[in-house]
Amino acid sequence: MARSTGRPRASGAESPSGLGTRSDILLAGARLFCTVGYGSTSTHAIATAAGIRQSTMYHYFAGKHEILLELLLGTVQPSLEAAKGLLARTESPAIRLWALCVSDVRLLSSGDANVGSLYLLPELSDPRLETFAAQREQLRAAYRELVASSASVSVDMERTASLVLGLVESVILLRRRSPESIDAETAPAIADAALRVIGLDDAAVRRIRVAGQALLDVLPTAD
Amino acid sequence: MARSTGRPRASGAESPSGLGTRSDILLAGARLFCTVGYGSTSTHAIATAAGIRQSTMYHYFAGKHEILLELLLGTVQPSLEAAKGLLARTESPAIRLWALCVSDVRLLSSGDANVGSLYLLPELSDPRLETFAAQREQLRAAYRELVASSASVSVDMERTASLVLGLVESVILLRRRSPESIDAETAPAIADAALRVIGLDDAAVRRIRVAGQALLDVLPTAD
Repeated sequence: MARSTGRPRASGAESPSGLGTRSDILLAGARLFCTVGYGSTSTHAIATAAGIRQSTMYHYFAGKHEILLELLLGTVQPSLEAAKGLLARTESPAIRLWALCVSDVRLLSSGDANVGSLYLLPELSDPRLETFAAQREQLRAAYRELVASSASVSVDMERTASLVLGLVESVILLRRRSPESIDAETAPAIADAALRVIGLDDAAVRRIRVAGQALLDVLPTAD
Repeated sequence: MARSTGRPRASGAESPSGLGTRSDILLAGARLFCTVGYGSTSTHAIATAAGIRQSTMYHYFAGKHEILLELLLGTVQPSLEAAKGLLARTESPAIRLWALCVSDVRLLSSGDANVGSLYLLPELSDPRLETFAAQREQLRAAYRELVASSASVSVDMERTASLVLGLVESVILLRRRSPESIDAETAPAIADAALRVIGLDDAAVRRIRVAGQALLDVLPTAD
């Protein structure tokens, strides 16, 4: 209705969030997908929530699947970057695995919408979202590499890596069910549990937590 | 289009699955919710997939939220029954926790649709679905009770129970991502990991697995 919504905004000056139209669309999409549901959200509703016309939205995204893809990539790309950085380092693999778990849980707990809750959408089978699936597979491979180097030889690596990733991603369900329970200890507690799953004992977990925390302090932040 | 679809079916005789109209509706709903998406599925689409008219569907369910509720209850009621049975028994709590994890993972892996993947729907905040939330909270309380009796005194019970439940429910994400990886070892491997998370060592886990398997053999099956 305002005069300024009738054309693409050239700069972030008129954006309600001050972050620019593109970010406004992503924020609106995330909120609507996570509160109304992906299937029930129209591109028109996203445009309205972002304070723009639907035609303007199409200057930025070809459709809501592109908004979904960008939101999903935001939950995996920073962790993948962190994983690549960690794989290149020389600390013991268990310390690096601990740091990756913490960093990943923090990313999945961050932002104002629980975008990880979109991981279970049937719409994720859409081939147009395959970049996300590919990046997630790369992240899984990084977990597997760190698990394989840190776990005792007797475990099934593939299965153990899945269990570790399952623990990390369990924060998505936790955030859906009881967001108030998520605090500063959530991420390190999940990372500790991951170490127990790969077979480390209490003393080792305590030692690695200290070293892992020191490692996180020198890493570029993922979120 | 067939003549018989124009009225409520009095018996299961004309049901395509042979299980009766009510089951046909639930099966059709589960498949559509998990492949097309809950928000994008109309009651008309469910009726068509079940081979009945929409008006007939309303003889069984007031709307798709009632179909969703019944599907969700099917993923928690049998585990809750198993949990109640286990809480009344006298085996060591860790053995009973192991058996509950296995039974729950098997339930979440069963059926032809991954109904657990609906746990993250924003539509679950609908007050009409609160029976599900209440039953799930009861199941969580049972996990907490078994964790509290089996874990070492130093752990945070609330958080540890959440981690155990998170591991169990991670099978939902695993089933979504790589259904082919789920096999007979998936449930016991998750249950073993739950024991490690509560602080048990390899020798204890091996011993409990044997006793837990024997316990499962004498329990009424949950799925």
